[in-house]
Amino acid sequence: MTTLPEIRIALPSWASEVIDWDRKYESDEDRMRVAITCARENVLRDTGGPFGAAIFDADTSRLVAVGVNLVVPLNNSSLHAEIVAFMMAQAALGTYTLAGDGVAPHELYTSCEPCAMCLGGVLWSGVRRVVWSATRDDANRIAFDEGPVFAASYDYLRARGITFDGGVLHAEGKAVLELYAGRGGTIYNA
Amino acid sequence: MTTLPEIRIALPSWASEVIDWDRKYESDEDRMRVAITCARENVLRDTGGPFGAAIFDADTSRLVAVGVNLVVPLNNSSLHAEIVAFMMAQAALGTYTLAGDGVAPHELYTSCEPCAMCLGGVLWSGVRRVVWSATRDDANRIAFDEGPVFAASYDYLRARGITFDGGVLHAEGKAVLELYAGRGGTIYNA
Repeated sequence: MTTLPEIRIALPSWASEVIDWDRKYESDEDRMRVAITCARENVLRDTGGPFGAAIFDADTSRLVAVGVNLVVPLNNSSLHAEIVAFMMAQAALGTYTLAGDGVAPHELYTSCEPCAMCLGGVLWSGVRRVVWSATRDDANRIAFDEGPVFAASYDYLRARGITFDGGVLHAEGKAVLELYAGRGGTIYNA
Repeated sequence: MTTLPEIRIALPSWASEVIDWDRKYESDEDRMRVAITCARENVLRDTGGPFGAAIFDADTSRLVAVGVNLVVPLNNSSLHAEIVAFMMAQAALGTYTLAGDGVAPHELYTSCEPCAMCLGGVLWSGVRRVVWSATRDDANRIAFDEGPVFAASYDYLRARGITFDGGVLHAEGKAVLELYAGRGGTIYNA
């Protein structure tokens, strides 16, 4: 018999303050700004890696949850921004899928194109659309390895009804990666 | 301003009792039996999906952590057995990578071939070898979709020094999937 660890995952306290949780977010740019704000604040406040994500209810245009990269501060390699956002959205709604019967379609906005783990996680999460700002190449340029993602990966997920759009507010998303690299941030899987 | 959820992830209490945490696990079969025991107990005790995983220190042959699928009980689509095992191992060792300088090589044993999310997560976790029992086809047969994993996905990870072996105690791993299906277990992403 042994004592097993309990994992606790909480967003940095600034996430409840710097985001407007009450307004409607109608456009892709409006929504992406939330994800990029999360990424940028995470860098500026030294609370994790340069990645942020946000999940919206597509019917009401309301923000459901945000996520930021917490790999280094929480010693947990799976806590990419998208995974944290899935967890927070599912906790908020009390469900293991954001695509259940009678549930509005949910959309994930992320400051950088998802890595292999997060793209795989999209399928289980129930989000119906994924939108990103910075690209896989932008992440590679600062030495983050995005893992085994191929054109066929997207085809596989599109065949299951998930849609993808990249490059929204691209310069702003990319700038957060460069900000992190410029500050000498940890490239945790280099 | 809003109140953000805190996520808490703990293994079922039986995990501290049914596993022998003190012995050495020398062979692939010995180690796989731990992963399959986790999977089977998770089904029999109704604490989650039919998947279990275990991480070993390859130098000492000691068990570092186990994981079980907790998707349905914890309303969290990312909590596959492998992801839970990574989290528990990293929490136990106080690190975000199991492959740091001076860290012994760690190996993941899982009762079923990893899905796309977990295979992507392998790269960030730092484990150097992945061994499974039941195959992707076995999981598909009971309607679990394993996501976008291709031969090229394994090539990509092998090129980064990770090795893979499948089919260890195959009949036993597959039997757990069939046990779960036979009991009418939730296929949470059908």
